[in-house]
Amino acid sequence: MNLNKTGRNYRREDSVIRIGEVSIGGGEFQIIAGPCSVESEEQILEISDVLKTTGIKILRGGAFKPRTSPYDFQGLKNDGIRLLSETKKQTNLLIVSEVMGINELPLFDEIDIIQVGARNMQNFELLKALGRINKPILLKRGYANTVYELLQSAEYIMLEGNENVILCERGIRTFENATRNTLDLSIIPVVKELSHLPIIVDPSHATGKASYVAAMAMAATAAGCDGLLIEVHNNPETALSDGKQSLNPEEFSDLYKNVNKIRACINK
Amino acid sequence: MNLNKTGRNYRREDSVIRIGEVSIGGGEFQIIAGPCSVESEEQILEISDVLKTTGIKILRGGAFKPRTSPYDFQGLKNDGIRLLSETKKQTNLLIVSEVMGINELPLFDEIDIIQVGARNMQNFELLKALGRINKPILLKRGYANTVYELLQSAEYIMLEGNENVILCERGIRTFENATRNTLDLSIIPVVKELSHLPIIVDPSHATGKASYVAAMAMAATAAGCDGLLIEVHNNPETALSDGKQSLNPEEFSDLYKNVNKIRACINK
Amino acid sequence: MNLNKTGRNYRREDSVIRIGEVSIGGGEFQIIAGPCSVESEEQILEISDVLKTTGIKILRGGAFKPRTSPYDFQGLKNDGIRLLSETKKQTNLLIVSEVMGINELPLFDEIDIIQVGARNMQNFELLKALGRINKPILLKRGYANTVYELLQSAEYIMLEGNENVILCERGIRTFENATRNTLDLSIIPVVKELSHLPIIVDPSHATGKASYVAAMAMAATAAGCDGLLIEVHNNPETALSDGKQSLNPEEFSDLYKNVNKIRACINK
Amino acid sequence: MNLNKTGRNYRREDSVIRIGEVSIGGGEFQIIAGPCSVESEEQILEISDVLKTTGIKILRGGAFKPRTSPYDFQGLKNDGIRLLSETKKQTNLLIVSEVMGINELPLFDEIDIIQVGARNMQNFELLKALGRINKPILLKRGYANTVYELLQSAEYIMLEGNENVILCERGIRTFENATRNTLDLSIIPVVKELSHLPIIVDPSHATGKASYVAAMAMAATAAGCDGLLIEVHNNPETALSDGKQSLNPEEFSDLYKNVNKIRACINK
Repeated sequence: MNLNKTGRNYRREDSVIRIGEVSIGGGEFQIIAGPCSVESEEQILEISDVLKTTGIKILRGGAFKPRTSPYDFQGLKNDGIRLLSETKKQTNLLIVSEVMGINELPLFDEIDIIQVGARNMQNFELLKALGRINKPILLKRGYANTVYELLQSAEYIMLEGNENVILCERGIRTFENATRNTLDLSIIPVVKELSHLPIIVDPSHATGKASYVAAMAMAATAAGCDGLLIEVHNNPETALSDGKQSLNPEEFSDLYKNVNKIRACINK
Repeated sequence: MNLNKTGRNYRREDSVIRIGEVSIGGGEFQIIAGPCSVESEEQILEISDVLKTTGIKILRGGAFKPRTSPYDFQGLKNDGIRLLSETKKQTNLLIVSEVMGINELPLFDEIDIIQVGARNMQNFELLKALGRINKPILLKRGYANTVYELLQSAEYIMLEGNENVILCERGIRTFENATRNTLDLSIIPVVKELSHLPIIVDPSHATGKASYVAAMAMAATAAGCDGLLIEVHNNPETALSDGKQSLNPEEFSDLYKNVNKIRACINK
Repeated sequence: MNLNKTGRNYRREDSVIRIGEVSIGGGEFQIIAGPCSVESEEQILEISDVLKTTGIKILRGGAFKPRTSPYDFQGLKNDGIRLLSETKKQTNLLIVSEVMGINELPLFDEIDIIQVGARNMQNFELLKALGRINKPILLKRGYANTVYELLQSAEYIMLEGNENVILCERGIRTFENATRNTLDLSIIPVVKELSHLPIIVDPSHATGKASYVAAMAMAATAAGCDGLLIEVHNNPETALSDGKQSLNPEEFSDLYKNVNKIRACINK
Repeated sequence: MNLNKTGRNYRREDSVIRIGEVSIGGGEFQIIAGPCSVESEEQILEISDVLKTTGIKILRGGAFKPRTSPYDFQGLKNDGIRLLSETKKQTNLLIVSEVMGINELPLFDEIDIIQVGARNMQNFELLKALGRINKPILLKRGYANTVYELLQSAEYIMLEGNENVILCERGIRTFENATRNTLDLSIIPVVKELSHLPIIVDPSHATGKASYVAAMAMAATAAGCDGLLIEVHNNPETALSDGKQSLNPEEFSDLYKNVNKIRACINK
């Protein structure tokens, strides 16, 4: 395995990814939160207000949604990106959103962090294109990919020039079905040993159930990750996608406090 | 699960995919063979001669290679496609080759069957683009995707208008490591029950070892698949990729005879 | 991995396991059939008559049933063994039945082949006890065990003196849920390369669905296995366990013919 | 799934398992530590002194070792149990050790907690025998068993009368090989939702590498488990089994402090 750019030999210290005035990595920790999909102006603004009040600086929201079936809700697409851009202007929150193909990249000008979803982790043409732009990339681990493969996909991006890569664990496929996927938190010490890149954790997609998210967020934080990606919805029961795993504002506020308690004690 | 187009309700009889004068499905069986990668004019012509003499009508050869590491051989790319087109003219063999992204599609004019590799099975932008062209698509199962997900990816292609989809099993990821992947032949009766689409099997990528390929090719045939995808190299020891799983011409000739014996007896 | 007794170095030729006048291995092939559980005298005798007429020489039937939940039917236990012994006397069929613990071994005097179930593949105390008796052992692969671990469990038995071990593939656990387990037929060429021991295949437990069993039985035969283990019930709808995967007599008769067709053609 | 005894319907509050003056569950947290195998009197006494000084109250040590190969070190067996009993007398530490079969149970009179290993989680004869004794049982999850199966195995024990069951997560088998197994910490909130039984976590067997153990121990604690099982060796380099995953005394002392920091902050 050749980790020319992602390995500790390339950079001894932890990489710090800067997005405007916010940082991830090297001791800087961010909770990124928001709905699975942008559904309407009211929805995204209402959620953003809650998040901002809580202390969140980066909003996640899907506009282009990779769905197993072509008959499922595919996201608001261009309109979703437009709503995210407007939300950014009104709230000053930074924005993360997922890109599904090279040809949509021009639409992502106002997006601050571009997400590569689990299904595209080895879409090498997309990775190379993202390596030639100047924005942080949030690279999610494929649900059947090893840590080594994740690092080599990051290598594809870095090799083209873009060194702002944030890794993300979101659960892998196993025989266990009490949770949607199996969250593999051991990846955190493995990545910290091999690489200088920051790694964040998405317990919402991993568990698939709101009542398990907080425990896994706290566990991930205690294991030493550099941030979290949490699905929050103003009204989870009516969400157009992934409502079962979304936290309502109150649950999210509790999670936020508990995660910060863990952060405070491990930094003592 | 909505199988509008891929399901038996859409078409009661097995679909027959026609490529020139050759057919796959509905009782028509094809062994597709060739090297993992096109390496040179000499190589591809030498292999093609062997295959043609054996009775093969469809040649496989990779020009764009999806590799885990950016430092591994990435294929001859445009030159590879050019060599395949020339081989087609000289030998009249039909050609299968893998496309990795939408932007390379214009290069595939002379290619008869376009392959979607395991890593791109849920690259929905690519699937939709392939749904709008008029060529058979060989859709490989992702190495961590269920049968239902495979069918839904085929649904993405068919929904755009292209109904010429050939499914391909090539092994899934499991804990077992005596073989490269675990060949899941049960997918054959499952697909035959749910769908009218033909399904072929790639025992070369699945086992990762030449000495296991023939047994698995025979098993797949007995289970009722519609064809095979076999890696053959004129000189496996020197192959630039996947040499360990490639058959030499003599081994391939034996496999061809044994598979045809099975075919003859199950059709009695 | 130390394969002192199970490896090809210990014995170059295939082992032939003899049970009375019947053999398994080294070209001798047996279809073992019968119900998941012995339920009553009528049931076991009715099924036995069907099997005998078809040409079957070895009857399977569970008396001690390892069930995930203590509230599920646990088998007729001692009464089940007694019914199997009586069936043996009346029909001259040889009998396979599963043992769950050392302390029940004395009950198995009349049983011809003792089965170790998937859940006990690494119950080393049981393996060692079976190594000290003089009967063939049918050792089923654990549903999460590698081929190497299966061979090493056989090694535990052989090392104590009993060299009559028959291996059995019955599906492994994966993320795929269209079938109950994923039948791993690649184990056949792997075992044939590494070991002299015979290997049979159980497509009933692997697929969990009657309509998939015949295709997988034919595939296993074509891959070179030494026999099959098939669940047959006189009335699958009313079976006390595993009815969904049991064949009725007519389906079994078809499977028997098709498997023999495959056998005939690969031996030509 | 019938969780008559293990479910929250049977007991609303968390069960507290008492072992002498020590408790596990219902807010009581224990770090159980010690070597994989008892190797000699010097070794076990030296490790025990370290643990006692650190504040540990329960010592783990293997006497009967379930090993994949019969040619690997099988433990000191009866001598190992004898050394553990002597250590108990000299140090007042409580003792956990693994039983492999029913017939060895009489040897475990002086052992305070009897461990069922991952390979025996569905050895139902053993579970039933342990249900008829009056000692706490530490039931490890099988490496390919679901949470539901683990609870149903606990049900086998409780149904016979012994309600002192402690569950233990120790990693499951997946395709990932950067760690020995994949530690599935999501089991903690799942078990807390479904059952009143305490659950502890073994990050040593799960990760298989000493440098990953502390991060996973902290993560498990933050997720809300009731205790930890940690391999500690006075000289990991020379350990007869599992040396690579054993902590030396200094590393263990650090882990102990860090886990207690997490405990203190989540209980605030």
